[in-house]
Amino acid sequence: MADQLVLDLTQALEDIPLIDPHSHIDPLNPVSRSLDDILGYHYYTELAHSAGMSQAPLAKDVPGRERVRAILQHIERFDNTLQYSWFAEIVKSFLGMTEDQISADNSDRLYDRAEKIFAQSDWEEQVFKKSNLEAIFLTNEFDDPLEDFDTSRYVPCLRTDALVFRLQEREIQIRLARATGVEVHDGPSLKRAIRKLFEQFLSKNAKACAISLPPNFSPKADAEALSPAGIFWVIAEHCREYKLPFDLMIGVNRQVYRNGVYQGQDLFDQRVSLLQYAELFNAFPQVTFPISVLCSNSNQELVSHAWIFPNVVTNGHWWYSNIPAYIHSDLKSRLQAVPKTKQIAYYSDAYKLEFVLPKFGMYRRVLANVLAEDFVRSRGWSENQAVELGKRLLRDNVREIFKI
Amino acid sequence: MADQLVLDLTQALEDIPLIDPHSHIDPLNPVSRSLDDILGYHYYTELAHSAGMSQAPLAKDVPGRERVRAILQHIERFDNTLQYSWFAEIVKSFLGMTEDQISADNSDRLYDRAEKIFAQSDWEEQVFKKSNLEAIFLTNEFDDPLEDFDTSRYVPCLRTDALVFRLQEREIQIRLARATGVEVHDGPSLKRAIRKLFEQFLSKNAKACAISLPPNFSPKADAEALSPAGIFWVIAEHCREYKLPFDLMIGVNRQVYRNGVYQGQDLFDQRVSLLQYAELFNAFPQVTFPISVLCSNSNQELVSHAWIFPNVVTNGHWWYSNIPAYIHSDLKSRLQAVPKTKQIAYYSDAYKLEFVLPKFGMYRRVLANVLAEDFVRSRGWSENQAVELGKRLLRDNVREIFKI
Amino acid sequence: MADQLVLDLTQALEDIPLIDPHSHIDPLNPVSRSLDDILGYHYYTELAHSAGMSQAPLAKDVPGRERVRAILQHIERFDNTLQYSWFAEIVKSFLGMTEDQISADNSDRLYDRAEKIFAQSDWEEQVFKKSNLEAIFLTNEFDDPLEDFDTSRYVPCLRTDALVFRLQEREIQIRLARATGVEVHDGPSLKRAIRKLFEQFLSKNAKACAISLPPNFSPKADAEALSPAGIFWVIAEHCREYKLPFDLMIGVNRQVYRNGVYQGQDLFDQRVSLLQYAELFNAFPQVTFPISVLCSNSNQELVSHAWIFPNVVTNGHWWYSNIPAYIHSDLKSRLQAVPKTKQIAYYSDAYKLEFVLPKFGMYRRVLANVLAEDFVRSRGWSENQAVELGKRLLRDNVREIFKI
Ligand SMILES: [Zn+2]
Ligand SMILES: [Zn+2]
Ligand SMILES: [Zn+2]
Repeated sequence: MADQLVLDLTQALEDIPLIDPHSHIDPLNPVSRSLDDILGYHYYTELAHSAGMSQAPLAKDVPGRERVRAILQHIERFDNTLQYSWFAEIVKSFLGMTEDQISADNSDRLYDRAEKIFAQSDWEEQVFKKSNLEAIFLTNEFDDPLEDFDTSRYVPCLRTDALVFRLQEREIQIRLARATGVEVHDGPSLKRAIRKLFEQFLSKNAKACAISLPPNFSPKADAEALSPAGIFWVIAEHCREYKLPFDLMIGVNRQVYRNGVYQGQDLFDQRVSLLQYAELFNAFPQVTFPISVLCSNSNQELVSHAWIFPNVVTNGHWWYSNIPAYIHSDLKSRLQAVPKTKQIAYYSDAYKLEFVLPKFGMYRRVLANVLAEDFVRSRGWSENQAVELGKRLLRDNVREIFKI
Repeated sequence: MADQLVLDLTQALEDIPLIDPHSHIDPLNPVSRSLDDILGYHYYTELAHSAGMSQAPLAKDVPGRERVRAILQHIERFDNTLQYSWFAEIVKSFLGMTEDQISADNSDRLYDRAEKIFAQSDWEEQVFKKSNLEAIFLTNEFDDPLEDFDTSRYVPCLRTDALVFRLQEREIQIRLARATGVEVHDGPSLKRAIRKLFEQFLSKNAKACAISLPPNFSPKADAEALSPAGIFWVIAEHCREYKLPFDLMIGVNRQVYRNGVYQGQDLFDQRVSLLQYAELFNAFPQVTFPISVLCSNSNQELVSHAWIFPNVVTNGHWWYSNIPAYIHSDLKSRLQAVPKTKQIAYYSDAYKLEFVLPKFGMYRRVLANVLAEDFVRSRGWSENQAVELGKRLLRDNVREIFKI
Repeated sequence: MADQLVLDLTQALEDIPLIDPHSHIDPLNPVSRSLDDILGYHYYTELAHSAGMSQAPLAKDVPGRERVRAILQHIERFDNTLQYSWFAEIVKSFLGMTEDQISADNSDRLYDRAEKIFAQSDWEEQVFKKSNLEAIFLTNEFDDPLEDFDTSRYVPCLRTDALVFRLQEREIQIRLARATGVEVHDGPSLKRAIRKLFEQFLSKNAKACAISLPPNFSPKADAEALSPAGIFWVIAEHCREYKLPFDLMIGVNRQVYRNGVYQGQDLFDQRVSLLQYAELFNAFPQVTFPISVLCSNSNQELVSHAWIFPNVVTNGHWWYSNIPAYIHSDLKSRLQAVPKTKQIAYYSDAYKLEFVLPKFGMYRRVLANVLAEDFVRSRGWSENQAVELGKRLLRDNVREIFKI
């Protein structure tokens, strides 16, 4: 019952090969081995727990088959959610089963079917192909060896949360010394270590630096050398020197729900402003900052900053804002006020490749709707023009901004 | 001109018997006696005043008939509002008159007609029936005797604003001592008094505890015993012990417009965060907190907290957010990201039973639209599935969460 | 492909003669002389710069023809934006050319055509007529002589930013002394100077006082006499005495992007609340405050304050909120909850008259959509009733509130 124009645009958008600019894929283990890898994703464990499931089935020693059954026993309580619909699309597209086969009663059949399909020797290739995926960015700890995988398909990205926020921890200092040969004890040694990391990452085809930041963070030029703000500043300086975009993922408070499931503890505070980054954006005109915001309330600030600052770029629809209700309104304003060359459409944030398809599928349907409403119908654009705009967001900008 | 699917869904939702989980009904005086009871509702007095009416007609000694005329003289200035449309629906559904008969010229006719209709001996029954209403929650002061009414139809709810925020007032201390036999002067005596209240309320079928909170409030475990935060904490402990849900209505600033009409003085500050409640939600995993937020800007935090915390439940669309523009966007995101078992659809907040029908009517039309857009059309659900989801929100969750 | 009802409503709204209640038109030089006056508007220079254009073409000594070419060389990068579509509408409506003729290659042709058309002796009259414009408000510095123009067509408005925020600067003190004959050195001399300004402006048909305010501003009755808050208060007192509405444009941070283009440096902080103005609104019940908010996140506070406070009026869709995505949602809630007599639809904020047509055109299309959805279709209003509501917002309220 959706309208024909939207269906046509969706179809055309599906034909654009994807470069997914942010994920948590393990390149040595990129696809699921069992349904436990799918339903063990924090979206399902946290929603099942939120809806009443105890954490007992999540213990390490519980067999995957049992964990899957436990989650399916609770899934009817959140089958309204978009996260559920990603699962339903995986079941349909990858397992060849229908949505009404999703039930606790059917747990073993689903589990067996997934095991069989995922065991195919070319499963990774099949998923790439079915998802029309060309390359995907990783999230690499600073001491990741970045070895034994194809870095043009799995693109390294230097994740710097640990460096910025945990360098006071002995464990991090040791790992950093091991990775770089530098013992960090002051500003100059910090710079030597960071430089070493950048050179290692760039030698492995790294295309971005990235960090997630709490709502109260504000980078400052004159911060103490080994404070989070000071370390952050040094990383930005190296992004400038090595011409790497610096992905900022702004707004997460860690471990708010202290007894939440693994990766299901973090939340946010809507009282955050990009004004906290004004000094940074002014100081580094040569660095491109693709910005993700966790709360849709920050979207208008993001739109306006990307409209004004040449080095600010909108980046995807992150986590708690990654549902059609927010994507739709956030995307409309971005398309109406930010230069089209400064918008990165979307990233999957996936831990397993099977999620690229349903997540980008969701995004493309919203994008097709917005293109139909605001460009074809309201402004008289042709379908081709609208699809070209989609392609720019989904593909061309990723290639240009990250120099792929 | 609305589409047929939406009309069908609306019709099906109307067939679900309502349990209204929050109101200010006086069970000894639940229905209107005159049109003054309808148009004396603060929504009309404050909008008439805001649009230019002096407060003279609102004085106690002005006859109701005159007050109604004064408000009708100003009503054309706000006939665009949704609050006006509730009145128009009351005129149509209960008085059997048409919207174009609403005018100052027609004031006496409307007044007389209402008086005649409201005087019917079975008017209360008629309103229950016409509204498809089964039961409605009250808002009871701590010293309400809760006597002489059917508590299965009018469900008591312990409202604790006065205890938390006004216990330093001698009047409240006296009333509390009279109600409980306990003179409160320290933490232990406070606990004895609160325990007494809970036992009294539970013996009268109370199903919830409730409070409205200012934007700057933040509950703390280690607050001083007789401070608001300290008293609040003790009440939460008793909700745990007595297994009562604790409705939190977050965000109201009282008496911002100092010379406003009665109940038309309060506003809010959008700079509030549910992060202020993280300690509470962590400390009381056994207490269910149905949360209402006054400003729609808080809705994404509410969605995300209900998605993560098992004990956080979304609750209705409160006051300044109770218009279709906000209900529509708030509801979409709740349905897309919060388990369906953790959402209480709506409450009327009514002072007179006649408002249940138009307010729930407004809500159901928005709900039908969202179900049509996001479930039947976008996700291929059947109409029956969509109506079942509506029933879960409107009825099943109220029964399960409040144990009715 | 838009629906017929929306087209009919748009057409009917276009027939309403406009009074534009806020602009930056120079009445001695109100229309464009060249395409440089059009594309030199900060929306185009800042978007071109944001999309990669250096600031070299913006230097004073660069010929207009070259500047236009440089901007057109970058315009394809932001042809998705609504700001671009204003330009496309100017090209179509005033230059009689088609959108596909907008390109760098075609730069000279566009430039020549504009020069020829703008040179017509009756161009100003033509623009007024084509825009269905009756009168337009100005933004006048306190020492503007307000001479040599028709003040019933170009309505003076006393802009007070310099007085409030820059009176500590010697230059402002000198200009103020020259304009009023008063040397300001304390509270009483300040009041004498302000009184003089009000008398001068009122003698020239001024209809409003206006100011833009940063997010952290909060007026106080007891502020120091010559502090911004103190000066602001004195101006409010004179608005009361001289019965002038006081336009508050709330939320702008100046020069956030320090090296941005002229007028393309300002941004905002979404963490602002109208609660900061509660003392003001309470203290001046006789002054009407038409309020503009820079960030759409402030819109619900604005709606609720206009709903409660008789002296608060919603005013237009300002700057970063002046795109259909935000106008649509902000307008819906205003129409659903604010008395229709307390809403000023829109202002162009234009520097050249040619922008009145495309900006009001954009607004009217959004308004027609909202009237169709929320009034004709949802509430059964006739088209005539809907257009009457539009006329009240677009015209009647401007006349009544500013006493024109
Ligand atoms: Zn991630
Ligand atoms: Zn209430
Ligand atoms: Zn302006």
